[in-house]
Amino acid sequence: MSLGAWHQGTRALPFVVSPPCTTGRTNLEWPDQISSSPLGDKVKKPTRVLAALACCALLGNAHADGPFRNPDNKNLKDPAEGTYPVPYKMPAVAEVTEQLNRVRAYMDQATPTRVVNKKTGAPVTDFKNPIADAAFEETAGDYGILVYEMGVVHTGLLKAAQVTGDDRFTAMTKRHLDFFAQTLPYFRAQEQKFHLERANSFARFLDPRSLDDSGSMCAALMRARAAKVGPDLSGMIATCSDWVANKQFRLADGTMARKRPQAVSLWADDMYMSIPALAEMGRMTGERKYYDLAVANVLGMAQRLYNPQLNLFTHGWHQHVPDSPRFYWGRANGWAVLAMSDLLDVLPKDHPGYDKVLYQLRATLKGIAELQSGSGLWHQMLDRNDSYLETSASAIFTYVFAHAINQGWISPTVYGSIAQAGWIGVSTKITPKGEVDGTCVGTTLASDQVYYYNRPTSVHALHGYGPVLLAGAEIIKLIKNPNVNIEYKVRTYHYQPKDGGKTDYREHQ
Amino acid sequence: MSLGAWHQGTRALPFVVSPPCTTGRTNLEWPDQISSSPLGDKVKKPTRVLAALACCALLGNAHADGPFRNPDNKNLKDPAEGTYPVPYKMPAVAEVTEQLNRVRAYMDQATPTRVVNKKTGAPVTDFKNPIADAAFEETAGDYGILVYEMGVVHTGLLKAAQVTGDDRFTAMTKRHLDFFAQTLPYFRAQEQKFHLERANSFARFLDPRSLDDSGSMCAALMRARAAKVGPDLSGMIATCSDWVANKQFRLADGTMARKRPQAVSLWADDMYMSIPALAEMGRMTGERKYYDLAVANVLGMAQRLYNPQLNLFTHGWHQHVPDSPRFYWGRANGWAVLAMSDLLDVLPKDHPGYDKVLYQLRATLKGIAELQSGSGLWHQMLDRNDSYLETSASAIFTYVFAHAINQGWISPTVYGSIAQAGWIGVSTKITPKGEVDGTCVGTTLASDQVYYYNRPTSVHALHGYGPVLLAGAEIIKLIKNPNVNIEYKVRTYHYQPKDGGKTDYREHQ
Amino acid sequence: MSLGAWHQGTRALPFVVSPPCTTGRTNLEWPDQISSSPLGDKVKKPTRVLAALACCALLGNAHADGPFRNPDNKNLKDPAEGTYPVPYKMPAVAEVTEQLNRVRAYMDQATPTRVVNKKTGAPVTDFKNPIADAAFEETAGDYGILVYEMGVVHTGLLKAAQVTGDDRFTAMTKRHLDFFAQTLPYFRAQEQKFHLERANSFARFLDPRSLDDSGSMCAALMRARAAKVGPDLSGMIATCSDWVANKQFRLADGTMARKRPQAVSLWADDMYMSIPALAEMGRMTGERKYYDLAVANVLGMAQRLYNPQLNLFTHGWHQHVPDSPRFYWGRANGWAVLAMSDLLDVLPKDHPGYDKVLYQLRATLKGIAELQSGSGLWHQMLDRNDSYLETSASAIFTYVFAHAINQGWISPTVYGSIAQAGWIGVSTKITPKGEVDGTCVGTTLASDQVYYYNRPTSVHALHGYGPVLLAGAEIIKLIKNPNVNIEYKVRTYHYQPKDGGKTDYREHQ
Repeated sequence: MSLGAWHQGTRALPFVVSPPCTTGRTNLEWPDQISSSPLGDKVKKPTRVLAALACCALLGNAHADGPFRNPDNKNLKDPAEGTYPVPYKMPAVAEVTEQLNRVRAYMDQATPTRVVNKKTGAPVTDFKNPIADAAFEETAGDYGILVYEMGVVHTGLLKAAQVTGDDRFTAMTKRHLDFFAQTLPYFRAQEQKFHLERANSFARFLDPRSLDDSGSMCAALMRARAAKVGPDLSGMIATCSDWVANKQFRLADGTMARKRPQAVSLWADDMYMSIPALAEMGRMTGERKYYDLAVANVLGMAQRLYNPQLNLFTHGWHQHVPDSPRFYWGRANGWAVLAMSDLLDVLPKDHPGYDKVLYQLRATLKGIAELQSGSGLWHQMLDRNDSYLETSASAIFTYVFAHAINQGWISPTVYGSIAQAGWIGVSTKITPKGEVDGTCVGTTLASDQVYYYNRPTSVHALHGYGPVLLAGAEIIKLIKNPNVNIEYKVRTYHYQPKDGGKTDYREHQ
Repeated sequence: MSLGAWHQGTRALPFVVSPPCTTGRTNLEWPDQISSSPLGDKVKKPTRVLAALACCALLGNAHADGPFRNPDNKNLKDPAEGTYPVPYKMPAVAEVTEQLNRVRAYMDQATPTRVVNKKTGAPVTDFKNPIADAAFEETAGDYGILVYEMGVVHTGLLKAAQVTGDDRFTAMTKRHLDFFAQTLPYFRAQEQKFHLERANSFARFLDPRSLDDSGSMCAALMRARAAKVGPDLSGMIATCSDWVANKQFRLADGTMARKRPQAVSLWADDMYMSIPALAEMGRMTGERKYYDLAVANVLGMAQRLYNPQLNLFTHGWHQHVPDSPRFYWGRANGWAVLAMSDLLDVLPKDHPGYDKVLYQLRATLKGIAELQSGSGLWHQMLDRNDSYLETSASAIFTYVFAHAINQGWISPTVYGSIAQAGWIGVSTKITPKGEVDGTCVGTTLASDQVYYYNRPTSVHALHGYGPVLLAGAEIIKLIKNPNVNIEYKVRTYHYQPKDGGKTDYREHQ
Repeated sequence: MSLGAWHQGTRALPFVVSPPCTTGRTNLEWPDQISSSPLGDKVKKPTRVLAALACCALLGNAHADGPFRNPDNKNLKDPAEGTYPVPYKMPAVAEVTEQLNRVRAYMDQATPTRVVNKKTGAPVTDFKNPIADAAFEETAGDYGILVYEMGVVHTGLLKAAQVTGDDRFTAMTKRHLDFFAQTLPYFRAQEQKFHLERANSFARFLDPRSLDDSGSMCAALMRARAAKVGPDLSGMIATCSDWVANKQFRLADGTMARKRPQAVSLWADDMYMSIPALAEMGRMTGERKYYDLAVANVLGMAQRLYNPQLNLFTHGWHQHVPDSPRFYWGRANGWAVLAMSDLLDVLPKDHPGYDKVLYQLRATLKGIAELQSGSGLWHQMLDRNDSYLETSASAIFTYVFAHAINQGWISPTVYGSIAQAGWIGVSTKITPKGEVDGTCVGTTLASDQVYYYNRPTSVHALHGYGPVLLAGAEIIKLIKNPNVNIEYKVRTYHYQPKDGGKTDYREHQ
């Protein structure tokens, strides 16, 4: 079913399209809450089944076929218990772990690490004599093994391994990194001989040209190194971190910029494409200059992109038009908060920017929290509830909410159930075969809503996979967090800090 | 039909579900406004009937089967007159009175006042020797006769009697109150003998534990007493007012609080659960301390829950997390404005808090007014037009707008047609048998939108009944208000204060 | 198809109404973007055709039958290219010109200029002896030739002639103006003899009573005069400009007011009904007093109607209730920005009000830009995405965005693609026979959302025609603007000022 359909349900005639499958805008009553009472009209019940069937037939999505009743409510006749468009409940660690494993297994099988002749498809085995047609084997789902999105996947796998203690989560990362170590010399030789430029499979590290080429994978390589996963890739790390720290075009104050689509443009996305790599460089080397530049980027971006009325980031900014209409694209806000979160993970608390970054993260999370949809997911355009529900942004937000609680940066009381609801929504986007559905494909910095609203979604958009792994892993940590007491009371969830004082329901029952 | 369907109408094929029944998001043209002109396509007309039939069949709601044409426009060929999803027109006093009577009759028959053996169902007639199984007879619709929602019903009935001059409106109140007088000693004896605690039908008055137990019924009892309806219940009034004024947990500044769901939480609902009772105590006793505490609660709640940018109240607040994401739940805002309105009804104008409460009420009403939907109703989450349209909040708002106009607190010019549209919307929720449909069931203070968006609605949610009685009665007063001149001009309604100066339509025709 | 349906598309069963025709609120994935990839499910493809057919059958609109693929993307297998509910692409000059000609031809044939006996329909040819029944021939579509909306049509035709260099665009204007010159003496004599008042076809100029009677046509007559189109109508110009400049009811500070619906009401519409006429009087006479009064009206209206938080104008204001709930009706905001734009076209740059008007226009355009829908159109109520998409406001906005860029008042970088998207949306509302569809009919200053949301739309609402002509003509200018460089890159459009510096996509490919 579509997560657009977070409605009360409806009464449908057989053989007629059920409206709740197609829109979240109904306010019809679902017969169930009535039928459990003496006045209920039990005759209506079969229509619910038909409506649900019609939904499934129409939408063809087997991985979420609500409406759902919350199983944590054991009173099956509770007239105050409704149904939900998503499986609203306390996620179980085993269930989340299984979901993570499903995504992991899908990613693993969908990302071959072989060199092939791109004309014949035949494996290339002679790594001594480079040929022009040698290339990374293409993946069925177009999941490039060196793209920035894959950096997030590795980061998610490392986090999942750390939380679950299960090394299977890092097997793919190890395989990819081994492959890099093994093939980099070959592709360097190929480049020297054939000058393929962007057509060289290893171009991003042989000749980095952008933050997209370098920052996210760079952070991932350093994290793998810290976790002792994979071989020594210090050469690759040197290349990508040099680009991020020294070579990327930037404003005078250090804020990372691009020469597209205008001559001097900022992209909120570049917070993630630079800050985590800088932060990891700081951690790896202990050199303060990396932290300084990372903090400067949080502040420089926020100064130009952040709207303090809505507590959101606009997607981008152009130097020659500083005061522009704003577009609150979901994933851009995701990159912004993920970058700040990653930075706070390693930034020394005595760094003069620590409190500023923490303040900026908190404020942005409040703005994002206030725009969560009734399905737990967030919309493609955060402030537009008529734009579609988007998975990658929702997963990033879910991760950052859960992580910020676990780190003690924000209160479990007000953000715990938001993180939980986020995960509930995101989890419905994991297909039985482990794909992540509903992710907006790659999206440029644009200037009109028609473009943003109508970006397609695809299971082949790699942007959703890393965030889902991060979110699931951090939700497991949240469920197990010893500093948080989660009460299920009066049909919903209440997250209490351990030192939050005693509650009392004596009045209630 | 669903009130979600406030659209222009559409063209439908026979035997096909008509889209306007399922969503209010279409902007298709309705053929009728075209067909009255020479270029109109009269062939399309029959499809409208079929579409309407399909709507009714699908939704099964006989009590509102639009689209509606405004009968106040006598020009049947007016090309500038469209249709409405609700019967947009000037409500007639007779019609509103009939609607009030229907709700009254339903409530009356649905709220038996008998003591029965809860195991056998047999009537208990021996009121000398208490038995453990004696209990109030349960109502078919789960309409508890001592719950806070019933306090609002009594208040509504008293108001309806006052406005219509028809004593039938207070018959049920008298019956309930007589029953209380008759059975309280019995249940007190039962409690002394069996210690049933919450299982005692009279527990709320034998052992009050919360504002929900006491405040709303307490205000109703004092109002009945002032109206000379029912027996002397000063003992019950003493019990409940003592709880509200002295025993309820509160902040240092007097703001009423709860120990759930967090150790120190405020609920906007508690404005209604305390302030009207305190106000009525002030009126009954003449003691200023009650007014002071009532005013302190308006100000203390507003200080923590009110968002002056949106002019709305968030549902709640936790002392250990004062700056939280906000949830603008409709009914909570209803309780807030109803409490302020009830207080202003009796607060002496020379009380130092009078102007502050009036200012707060006015500001909140402006915020609420700006969020009325295109059907006259308001959404479950006031700022979210993709949450369902909710009856109880809409009815409370309608009452308070109309009442505040009638009291001279706000202008008829800008709020009169909002109140009228509110009533038009609310009236479609009254079923032929007098039920009030579309009311959100009891809802706790929660921390995620998934919970709020998906609360079920039910005709058994008693929360809607009192507000509908209040709203209808006050709309009758507004229609008859001698200080307001209501003009129907250019297809809509213009409310003019009697001293508002002369209008002139000479330019127009 | 309806422009409400700007969605990703959906999967539909045969013989079942396709949801995307009925709502823009789905977030289902369209199979196409999947089927171009190896994992795509090609079996789903036929259902798209059926869904599209169902849409067309249901809606009966041949003039826009999406979803559309952007033809500017030549890569037919691009997995990151989705579909659009409107034909998102670079408009071609020839195509826009053809659309303008279609509207022009429709208007021309739909506005006869004959005097007839209104009882018999027979032509009146004896212009010496007035008869009481002589009247302008009625138009099939109720397009009055002296109404204010026709003033905008003439202005649009003059603009189209100027931009295209094609004199056919002014033929209708010339015909109407010749007819006025020819028949005014006759109707004046008729009035002296029969005292028909408003029933006299020429009443608006014989006895003007409102800004609606005079301002818009007055501006058009002066523009035609400046363009040397039609005969000398200085008598008519004197009459109407005298009304606007001297006789209309106004506040003490000069702000134009009405005595309806309250005794002293402001209407944002009256910015257009007065300011352009005053501006043209300034231009024609060179007298500063007209500019002063025009500027005073921009500032006086903005002071009372403009919300600086949202950057929008509320529809109206009543002197006795200055702080009221606000209704952001689309077309009222259209009139406001069009009036400011028209004024800036002729206001001397050294006028002390120039910068204030420019600032106000810029701020309002930013607010409007931020509310553009995902179809390029704007909603009837600008801040309500559940109100229908409305053509006339959208066309006015499109014109003003494009014109303000062409005049150098706002940046092409951030407003160019908004103007383009606006035109794309508006253009789908032009029917094959040249009608403009989806325009809200005449709408009074009201006080409730039920009224505004449910105003019908009609091809007979003349309000849409002038704005569509203006918008199309100005879009042609924008496309050809030598100071703007429009890049189509990464699937969207980037408007660059010629002096905006060099972009660089080397990183990208």
